Amino acid sequence: MYNVAVIGAAGFVGAELVRILLAHPAFKLAAISSDSEAEKPLAQVYPSFTGRTDLCFVTHAKALQETDEKLDLVFLPVPHTAAMQLAPDILNKGISVVDVSADFRLRDAASYEAWYGTPHTAPELLGKAVYGLPEAYRKELQELAEKRMSQQEPALVAAPGCYPTASTLAAMPLIKAGLLKADDVVVINAISGISGAGKKPTDTTHYCSVDENLFAYGVAFHRHTPEIAQTLSHLAGRAIAIQFTPHIAPLNRGMVSTVTMRLCQEAAAEATAKSIQQLYEESYADEPFVHVLPATTMPKSSSVAYSNNAHVGVGYDASTSMVVASCAIDNLAKGAAAQAVQGANIIFNLNETTGLES
Amino acid sequence: MYNVAVIGAAGFVGAELVRILLAHPAFKLAAISSDSEAEKPLAQVYPSFTGRTDLCFVTHAKALQETDEKLDLVFLPVPHTAAMQLAPDILNKGISVVDVSADFRLRDAASYEAWYGTPHTAPELLGKAVYGLPEAYRKELQELAEKRMSQQEPALVAAPGCYPTASTLAAMPLIKAGLLKADDVVVINAISGISGAGKKPTDTTHYCSVDENLFAYGVAFHRHTPEIAQTLSHLAGRAIAIQFTPHIAPLNRGMVSTVTMRLCQEAAAEATAKSIQQLYEESYADEPFVHVLPATTMPKSSSVAYSNNAHVGVGYDASTSMVVASCAIDNLAKGAAAQAVQGANIIFNLNETTGLES
Amino acid sequence: MYNVAVIGAAGFVGAELVRILLAHPAFKLAAISSDSEAEKPLAQVYPSFTGRTDLCFVTHAKALQETDEKLDLVFLPVPHTAAMQLAPDILNKGISVVDVSADFRLRDAASYEAWYGTPHTAPELLGKAVYGLPEAYRKELQELAEKRMSQQEPALVAAPGCYPTASTLAAMPLIKAGLLKADDVVVINAISGISGAGKKPTDTTHYCSVDENLFAYGVAFHRHTPEIAQTLSHLAGRAIAIQFTPHIAPLNRGMVSTVTMRLCQEAAAEATAKSIQQLYEESYADEPFVHVLPATTMPKSSSVAYSNNAHVGVGYDASTSMVVASCAIDNLAKGAAAQAVQGANIIFNLNETTGLES
Amino acid sequence: MYNVAVIGAAGFVGAELVRILLAHPAFKLAAISSDSEAEKPLAQVYPSFTGRTDLCFVTHAKALQETDEKLDLVFLPVPHTAAMQLAPDILNKGISVVDVSADFRLRDAASYEAWYGTPHTAPELLGKAVYGLPEAYRKELQELAEKRMSQQEPALVAAPGCYPTASTLAAMPLIKAGLLKADDVVVINAISGISGAGKKPTDTTHYCSVDENLFAYGVAFHRHTPEIAQTLSHLAGRAIAIQFTPHIAPLNRGMVSTVTMRLCQEAAAEATAKSIQQLYEESYADEPFVHVLPATTMPKSSSVAYSNNAHVGVGYDASTSMVVASCAIDNLAKGAAAQAVQGANIIFNLNETTGLES
Repeated sequence: MYNVAVIGAAGFVGAELVRILLAHPAFKLAAISSDSEAEKPLAQVYPSFTGRTDLCFVTHAKALQETDEKLDLVFLPVPHTAAMQLAPDILNKGISVVDVSADFRLRDAASYEAWYGTPHTAPELLGKAVYGLPEAYRKELQELAEKRMSQQEPALVAAPGCYPTASTLAAMPLIKAGLLKADDVVVINAISGISGAGKKPTDTTHYCSVDENLFAYGVAFHRHTPEIAQTLSHLAGRAIAIQFTPHIAPLNRGMVSTVTMRLCQEAAAEATAKSIQQLYEESYADEPFVHVLPATTMPKSSSVAYSNNAHVGVGYDASTSMVVASCAIDNLAKGAAAQAVQGANIIFNLNETTGLES
Repeated sequence: MYNVAVIGAAGFVGAELVRILLAHPAFKLAAISSDSEAEKPLAQVYPSFTGRTDLCFVTHAKALQETDEKLDLVFLPVPHTAAMQLAPDILNKGISVVDVSADFRLRDAASYEAWYGTPHTAPELLGKAVYGLPEAYRKELQELAEKRMSQQEPALVAAPGCYPTASTLAAMPLIKAGLLKADDVVVINAISGISGAGKKPTDTTHYCSVDENLFAYGVAFHRHTPEIAQTLSHLAGRAIAIQFTPHIAPLNRGMVSTVTMRLCQEAAAEATAKSIQQLYEESYADEPFVHVLPATTMPKSSSVAYSNNAHVGVGYDASTSMVVASCAIDNLAKGAAAQAVQGANIIFNLNETTGLES
Repeated sequence: MYNVAVIGAAGFVGAELVRILLAHPAFKLAAISSDSEAEKPLAQVYPSFTGRTDLCFVTHAKALQETDEKLDLVFLPVPHTAAMQLAPDILNKGISVVDVSADFRLRDAASYEAWYGTPHTAPELLGKAVYGLPEAYRKELQELAEKRMSQQEPALVAAPGCYPTASTLAAMPLIKAGLLKADDVVVINAISGISGAGKKPTDTTHYCSVDENLFAYGVAFHRHTPEIAQTLSHLAGRAIAIQFTPHIAPLNRGMVSTVTMRLCQEAAAEATAKSIQQLYEESYADEPFVHVLPATTMPKSSSVAYSNNAHVGVGYDASTSMVVASCAIDNLAKGAAAQAVQGANIIFNLNETTGLES
Repeated sequence: MYNVAVIGAAGFVGAELVRILLAHPAFKLAAISSDSEAEKPLAQVYPSFTGRTDLCFVTHAKALQETDEKLDLVFLPVPHTAAMQLAPDILNKGISVVDVSADFRLRDAASYEAWYGTPHTAPELLGKAVYGLPEAYRKELQELAEKRMSQQEPALVAAPGCYPTASTLAAMPLIKAGLLKADDVVVINAISGISGAGKKPTDTTHYCSVDENLFAYGVAFHRHTPEIAQTLSHLAGRAIAIQFTPHIAPLNRGMVSTVTMRLCQEAAAEATAKSIQQLYEESYADEPFVHVLPATTMPKSSSVAYSNNAHVGVGYDASTSMVVASCAIDNLAKGAAAQAVQGANIIFNLNETTGLES
């Protein structure tokens, strides 16, 4: 058993992490923190925990300093900027970190500053962090695990954002195969439930703002844009341009990202709906959590709710040479907390599905 | 006052037509028909009409044959294939028709057969029908009005589908201005409430199938594809290719269509977010129902619920030369019934907003 | 045309009042106020007004003082305590007031203090205010109208709360007929959409708190309790005890109140489902907005959404001598704004349905 | 490991049983049946099982006859009347049955016929069946377990309906304590999500019928009425009359039942909110799945979603001598499938919480 703490456990992602970790056979939840809810029982803030645990929130400081047993791992589902302030000290104590904020996702400090409007205060860690999308960076995560064991070097995982997870999984097989038209801009339209906006009550998260409503937002400047482009470019081995437009729909948890990509001429000359389907199926054949649905079947977010699964569907339009691939995830699970645990499983050499079976 | 009948009034679009027409100052609702609900009071099938009207459904045949006063206009919110069977006889009696089915939207009978899987049985009417999107075909609709008056020739209007309405209004200013990259495929992702799937209970329309769910469907073969392409090509004066992917979200009424379009090099060299915003604002300045929102504001479907309004927002991404435009409508109102009344107002020389003010 | 102002127009009830008044043929909306949104266009705060009006919010003070034309009527959809501070001055200027807060609903200042936890600062007005439920107090409202005209005495109407409206309309026919068991406690269970909690973002109104959720609240101490008891006692001519339990369900607008009442022995000896149905139908036969549904049919909140209608259904269980009556309203319409306009119509001698037809 | 089959596994309750049993450490899911979906993979009908199991539906007959290993237990989430036709044969083979239909809940065949409109075809089993609400019948269920082991007598458990579960758990402490006014009619108002209406698409379960809607139904004649009265009378040791009114609200899974009960004079003389709270807390102190919330806190259905937990809140109104108790459950879990597994755990001498921990 490894001792773990969740710093920032009162938010939606934090509570989901707690839910998973309470049933996890190899991680022992030693502390949960929230500066605003400190001293309150978890079950008071989230009544679904009534009768399941007596855990109380403590302050961040207390969670990190006064735990009886040494921590092995800290999850950081905190707002961006908070993670880059906390992580260096935690790592210095030899404790591994799975950051669920945006702070260590971009490789480039300048890009971070451009998109988040604030300088990065721990740029030296950017090169050490591994992007925690196992389907794209499993080897790198396994290397972290090895260094953690052989050299006692604590690992730093940057768990991906929800939109990047769904978008990358939809695009990855085609991008990796190098079939994209050279000057194509990958068009990504995604739809999210409102839990992605966080627990803070605002005009935007008011029930009456969301109910019976649909809308796009963040056109041309959503902060997940560079994160998606970075991963797709990594997979392609060349710069990939994207146009990402997120939308909100009236549901709590759930996300669909639909990616439209144009084949290069040579690929289009040979492609059929069947060959594209086969490419996707083979690409994910060994993945425990990514499932390609049968031909012409598109994924539903309800099918993956409360699980770490991602469902992918793909179609091909010969008249336009375009592939349309759609991926459904639970934005709080595979899009945040559960995927963070998947990454943690890897860096602690556990079976990747431990604690994430259902 | 003109006498009108609604044939197929028991469906969602039919009931919405009845709601509008009951308050319309120039159209008198002489009959509503439904073969399956014949003899039942409207208020029994739709309790919201309780105390507002004593209208009862009659059969289609009775609505068309036995009305005391001569009909001037018939709305046909019926399934496709039903309209092309009914329309010729109605027109032969000198009665104008606003068809709300798909039967007279495509100009080309071969295209109809290819997409709907059945031959068109009234192809001679395809050339006479005018596509009832006033923002794109107002002049042609006004010519119908003139012929109706001067030559006693009954008009045939093909009211547009919901996805084509929202998608066309989002794309139109850019397309008309000729700013599109020559080989670009216009990428359209739309999201709809479930009322668009009709009143018939199916596995798809079951509450538990829709609630807390999101999904794409009809990838590469949704029947609204040729209808959108036909209008955009008409506006561009050249063939425009599109990639259309519709989605379902958990709401009753509401639709958002987000269109991603790439500027040609010359246009991109000069374009700014401001110039694109201006293009959109000027393009719709005189439209009574289409409103361009302030810069960076994207439209919400709840803002146009139960109205004939369309809200349009537009953004420009200089890094990709792409314009992202989003249009929100109520799929049963501007996307069907209310727009059908807008078309009817034109062909009867009424003020276009009559009966559609709120 | 009468000049009217809405003070506190930025809340949900205020915006609904504006929506109704903009289309009202006899009330001219001279000013809308909100101290927090002052100077903003209405369409910026509520985009559904885009293209319909250029009205901007002003401060309360400006709305009341600097209007060009003298105001005839002020609506006060403000929080409780605000209305009793504003109303005296407005009335002193000779302007009538329809208060949509709780401040003038209870006849007894001591009861107000007991339930609202603050002394009433305008107790002298409590005797002058008439409770604005026309179905129960039409005569008293008409007397206000007469005094307004004959004696230039401005009227003060206390528009009812949403739960009291639905609960009273469900219980009224039986209570008025005197059929209730002497020591019976009338049991009222009501369910409301979340818009009743107001526009302010809170933990309670967060989408993720409401979605897929059901719960009771305010058991034994909801502030609408004394208001319901006061009206039922007035109708019965004796003190009626009630047990009122409200619930929240995941919807925006809509309310159902189900009232369970036990017949006295003599009544039970003669009662049948048919006789109770008949009692209800006769009781509301002349009401323009209250519709009793056919036997065994229970009302649906969706059937009255966005309208001033109330639908009532009633059942009788001979095995328990109990009548179960259920009333559905739109909590923001018949439960607040539309009913306030109904009351205003009466005190200005207009047809009661003016501006409320659909 | 015990071999179990789920007959009627394609419905909502059946699928929920499958979900629980696939992770159950002591029950091995040997077969799932559905006559209408026979031969289809479970994951095709419910995509959430994709990648979790290769189970396919078989016919009822095949599930019962051709399984390789002898079955120990059969769950029957089938429509009423189907269970009483299937159960006798299954029991005759020595296989225990947990019936999730209504067929063995009422003790009295005449009552069954009166409420279900059809004669009971296996009345001899009514005396042997034990009502599967462990909080009320644990001893009787444990006796079944003993007979099953000592006498090889297969057990028959009648798993309760959803409304009876929530209503009984809300009322039980007060009823058992004998504090009810002698002639009181217990008033029960419950609200349910639409999944309780089953998987069949109907006008009632259409998304557009449920969304943004609230309504009562089945007033005075809902079939769960005698079931609730039977259990409360059993607990009271005398006949208890109830008035039960169910409602539908727009959610998938979730139920709240609010029970209003009047204290007898002696009890009222001594009762306080605190004493009633204490009575409830003590009553459920040892129950693994029933949790009494802190004073003045009412339970939320979202807090128990997807779990076998029941949350109970209670309030006392001294002015009316009335106790208002509310219980929240997941209608498909504690209200059906999970509770059926809880009963199965007992009759197989397993820890009652096995497989139901989260």
